[in-house]
Order: sequence, then C-alpha cells, then structure tokens
Amino acid sequence: MDTLRWQAGTLFLLDQTKLPFEEIYLPCHSWQDVRQAISVLAVRGAPAIGVAAAYAVVLAARSLCQKGGDTPFLTALEAICQDLDAARPTAVNLHWALTQMMACARQHEADGAEAVTAVLEEKAIAIHEADVAINTAMARFGADELEKLGRPLTLLTHCNAGALATAGVGTALGVIRELHRRGLVSMVYADETRPLLQGARLTAFELMADHIPVTLITDNMAAWTLKTKGVDAIIVGADRIAANGDTANKIGTYGLSLMARELAVPLYIAAPASTFDLSITDGSQIPIEERNHDEVRSFRGVAAALPETPVFNPAFDVTPHENIRAIVTEKGIIHRPDAVSVPAFFQH
Amino acid sequence: MDTLRWQAGTLFLLDQTKLPFEEIYLPCHSWQDVRQAISVLAVRGAPAIGVAAAYAVVLAARSLCQKGGDTPFLTALEAICQDLDAARPTAVNLHWALTQMMACARQHEADGAEAVTAVLEEKAIAIHEADVAINTAMARFGADELEKLGRPLTLLTHCNAGALATAGVGTALGVIRELHRRGLVSMVYADETRPLLQGARLTAFELMADHIPVTLITDNMAAWTLKTKGVDAIIVGADRIAANGDTANKIGTYGLSLMARELAVPLYIAAPASTFDLSITDGSQIPIEERNHDEVRSFRGVAAALPETPVFNPAFDVTPHENIRAIVTEKGIIHRPDAVSVPAFFQH
Repeated sequence: MDTLRWQAGTLFLLDQTKLPFEEIYLPCHSWQDVRQAISVLAVRGAPAIGVAAAYAVVLAARSLCQKGGDTPFLTALEAICQDLDAARPTAVNLHWALTQMMACARQHEADGAEAVTAVLEEKAIAIHEADVAINTAMARFGADELEKLGRPLTLLTHCNAGALATAGVGTALGVIRELHRRGLVSMVYADETRPLLQGARLTAFELMADHIPVTLITDNMAAWTLKTKGVDAIIVGADRIAANGDTANKIGTYGLSLMARELAVPLYIAAPASTFDLSITDGSQIPIEERNHDEVRSFRGVAAALPETPVFNPAFDVTPHENIRAIVTEKGIIHRPDAVSVPAFFQH
Repeated sequence: MDTLRWQAGTLFLLDQTKLPFEEIYLPCHSWQDVRQAISVLAVRGAPAIGVAAAYAVVLAARSLCQKGGDTPFLTALEAICQDLDAARPTAVNLHWALTQMMACARQHEADGAEAVTAVLEEKAIAIHEADVAINTAMARFGADELEKLGRPLTLLTHCNAGALATAGVGTALGVIRELHRRGLVSMVYADETRPLLQGARLTAFELMADHIPVTLITDNMAAWTLKTKGVDAIIVGADRIAANGDTANKIGTYGLSLMARELAVPLYIAAPASTFDLSITDGSQIPIEERNHDEVRSFRGVAAALPETPVFNPAFDVTPHENIRAIVTEKGIIHRPDAVSVPAFFQH
C-alpha cells in the first residue's frame, strides 16, 4: 500500500480521509486535484505533502505547455507554486519541495517549457525516492539513539508520523519500526488525535498491519498512560522546526511536552532536514493553521455538539525546544536542540 | 429541564446519552432500571448518581415489600445496595448515598418494611433537595474565591460538572454560573472530553442555553488554549477525593493539572462534602473504572478505528493534591489541600 504513486503521468494518492475503512486511490490529473487533496487531508503528513506538491508542479508544467498562453511559462508556474504553498500554511516541507522544483525549473529555463517539464518530472521522482531513503536513514539513527535506553521500550506517539505521512517507512513510526525489527518495542500507545483521528485511523492501523504491539487511547488519557504504564519515551513527527529547535507539530504535541517535563519522560522528534526552517529564529514565527470548526463539532459526519457551538480549531501547536530531548534527522541526532545546536548541526 | 425527577413513585432520568440532540426521559420503575441507567451513563456526574441511587433504594424497598420472601427485608435491601454500589466504582457519592439510605432504614427497622419504605422515600427526597442547596452554596463560595482574581475571567473546564451532573446548578458550572451572574466570565473553554463527549454534548449545551460564552475545543487543544488564550483558571468537578486531597475526576484532569503546573494556571476543584472519602489516605487507593473498549474505538456509533484495535479506556484519573490550588465545597474553601488541611476542614 503506497501513500502516493506516480504512474503514466498521473499522481495516485491513497485517500487518507477514508482509511482504515476503505482503501481508495484518488487519481490527480491536474495540480488543482493535488491542491484539493492536500487541503482536505486526503494526503497529509509534512513529508508526503512535499512529495505530492512536487508532482503537482509537474502536472502544472505539463498543463502550461499544452495551453500555452500569454504569461511566460516560469511566471505562470511560479504563481501556481504560490497557490499550492498556501494550501497548508504550517508544514514547511510543502514550501521546501516547491522551492526545489522552482529552482530546478529556473536552472533549465533556457531549454524551453517542454524540456523543463521533463526535467521537473525527473526532479519530482528524485524528491520522492529521496524521501524513502531519508526515512530509512532516520529510522536507523533514531533506533540507535533509543536503543541506548537499554531495554524493550514502551513508547507513546501522537497523530500519524508513519508510512502514511511520508513516501517511506515514516518518521516517528520509521524509528519505531526499526526498534521493533531489533526486538526493542514492548508497546506503543497511540493517541487517537482528534479532531481527524489520524492516530486511531492511521497509526493504529499501520502498526497493527506490521504486527507491532499498539494500544489506542483518547488524547486525554496520555498523562495517565505516561504515569501508570511506564512509558519510556514519546516520539512524534514535526511540521516545521525553527532555528532554535521550537517545533510545530499536530495539535496536542505541546500538551504532551508539558506532561513529559513533569513526568521526566524524554520527548523525541523525528523529522527530515526539509522540516527545518532556519529562516525563522523561533516558534512564535510559525503560522498556525486554523481549520473548519465542523471538524471539532463532528466526527466522520456524526455530530458531537450542536451545530451552532463556537469552536477553536488550531491544527498545530508549537513545542518549545527546552521540552525536546533530541531531534532525529536523516543526517544524525540533534541533542538538546537550541539556537546554538540546531544551526551548528546544519553547518557541517 | 431537570436532570432527574421523582414523580408518583417513578424516577424519571433525562437520558444524557442522547443529549443535546434529543431530550428523552427514561422512566425507572425498578432499582434495576436505575442501575442500568447508571451503568450506561444515562445519568452521570457523581452528585446526580448519588441522588439517583437514593431513589433506587426506595424502588428496591417498595419491591421487597410487595414481594415478601424469606430473606429479611434489611438483609435483602443491603444486598441490593451492594449491587448498586458496584455500578460505578470510582464516584464515592454513590456509596455515600447508599450508606445514608441504609442507615436510615436500620434506624427505623422496628417499624416494619412498609414504614421503612415510606421513610426512605422522605430520605431520598431530602438528599435530592439537599443537593440543590449544596450546589447553590458551592457556587457562592467558589465565585467569591475566583472573584479575588480581580477581573473578568477566561476559564477552562473538562467533562460536565454542571446541572446535568447534579440536581442543582452544578458544581464547577455552578461556580461559573454564579461568576457569570456577577458579570465576571469573559469566556469558558470546554474540553470535548472523549470518549463520551460530555464536554461537547453537555457542557457546551448547558452554557449556551444559559447564554454564557463558551468555546468548544478537543482535549488535545487544552495546553495550546491555556498558553495562547490567557486562561485565568481551570475549574472541574470530582468523583472522589482522598483525605490528603488527591482527587479522582474524569480522565484528562490529571493531564490538565500537569499543564496547569507548567503554565502556572491555578486548578480548582468544586465538589460537595459527599465526594470526600476520608477513609482513604491518598489517591492510590481510589479504584479507577475501566470501561468498554468500543467507547474509544467509536464515536456515537461511528467507527473511529478498526474493531480489532487494542484499547486502554480508564474512565478517571487521579490528580495529586499538590496540583490543586483549592477545593470548593458547600462548607467553604479548602486552600492548598493536603493531608493536614483536608481532615482539619472537616473537623470544624
């Protein structure tokens, strides 16, 4: 089961809004199809969004070639990239992938639109394949780090930072998969992750499919689980990491980080280098996406509250770097991330 | 809209599993009907459970009078009380009400079963009416205490400690109602409180009906709300309070208390004296009810996860007394509850 598949010039996205009850692939023939899929979270997870956006640029370039028009090719492509970039404001991998694609297009501009389109397709495939390799590298570094705890581990994770959030084995769940391969996972507690239940629908599903022991809890059970179940570590993904290590991730991560501090449970982030936004000094500069209030007022189409109930629905929160033990990347581990260690890590 | 109503020898319970979408009263003609209603949470909230159980004893006594049988009346009634007591293990008000009822029955034993039944009905009505008065007194003490913060307040609450959890204005929501009457509430954030959504279905509904400003959030948004919305205090109810102030309440309260410590937001408990269990020295002795796993795997009948997903479903957790700023009771406030202040409070 692939999260996304590029086949004969069409991007097929596994519709994650339907999982685990139905496995349906959405065929995306245009960049608008991809944008819509990103908006409704048919494809989600920062790395997977980045790969999907890269293919969206290919679809956009092809369409521009066919239609022609007065606007110069690169100008039109740039405008489409800006539109795609706005689909999810928090995850920076989307922006990163679009930047990579535009740089590639500019580099080959002189060869003409057709040639640029061909090169962009190669570039998107390269980004896709790189994500697979990045996941595998991250999984090894993370497992090496957590293995140091010296015992089979009871872990807790939030949202879905798994294969379904990437093109590979996952970020946080990639590390868990590798630990499991080494016989070092005794239990994974998965927060259900309201409002859209990525933990219940995706993480529990992924781990069960791989025969990794998992127990589902509601989000408000996390603290009691940490306290009573001997949780050794929390490991989650990320959507954007500032230059000081402050980390935006799915709403609820910040609360977990406060509980983790109080209970002295280490919190690990697993995220590729493309998640870092070194252009911002700290987490206060990360835009937090607010989503439709009906997500909170309902649940897979069933009402949870009266339709007129006022709602606050931030999709992400920011965990301050002081609450993070280490960040696992494909290039190695950043211990005790801060305004010194993070930039230093990327200078090497 | 009454949470419960005693009418012509029948207990009518507002079916809280159907709220806010349908307002249906369940007629309970037997103690078994009441026990079932308590089990499925048709009636819930520690004080309301206590009142319902008192009426269940009346229904049981009446049935025993009618049936006769070999077992002595009080012995049979005692056995029924034990069965009722087991319906919800955590909330102590259930046990408290049953103890009150049995003491009353024993006191009038010499008068015969018919006379005892009549006295028990008077006693149940007295417990019911006392709960109304207790709520009102608690609301005033709590509002006086929170008024000291000296400004219109932004509050956060969890689960439903409202009119629907009691026979009166509510415990935590009673305090909020009184603060609102004094013009001191600027916003109440209500955690939805998975798995059974008492916050979304009951608290938001109650506050909107009273035109008190409320905003619904999912449980995992609490920390970010505390941090970004200027929450002045958290106020919740309780299901059992140990002699040192350790407090069992709806799952998620413990996590809130950890966030509250980290963010220096005071946490208040509002609970009647009947919630205190001075027979236990600390919270480790409070039994924590675990409920059906399908509550977590689903949501108002709609699947949230695959049916074979393993689940942990504790209905309550225990907040250590160090995390509690004060407990509001109908007799006054216990500041900084601990093994000294709590017993001392009840000695006066």
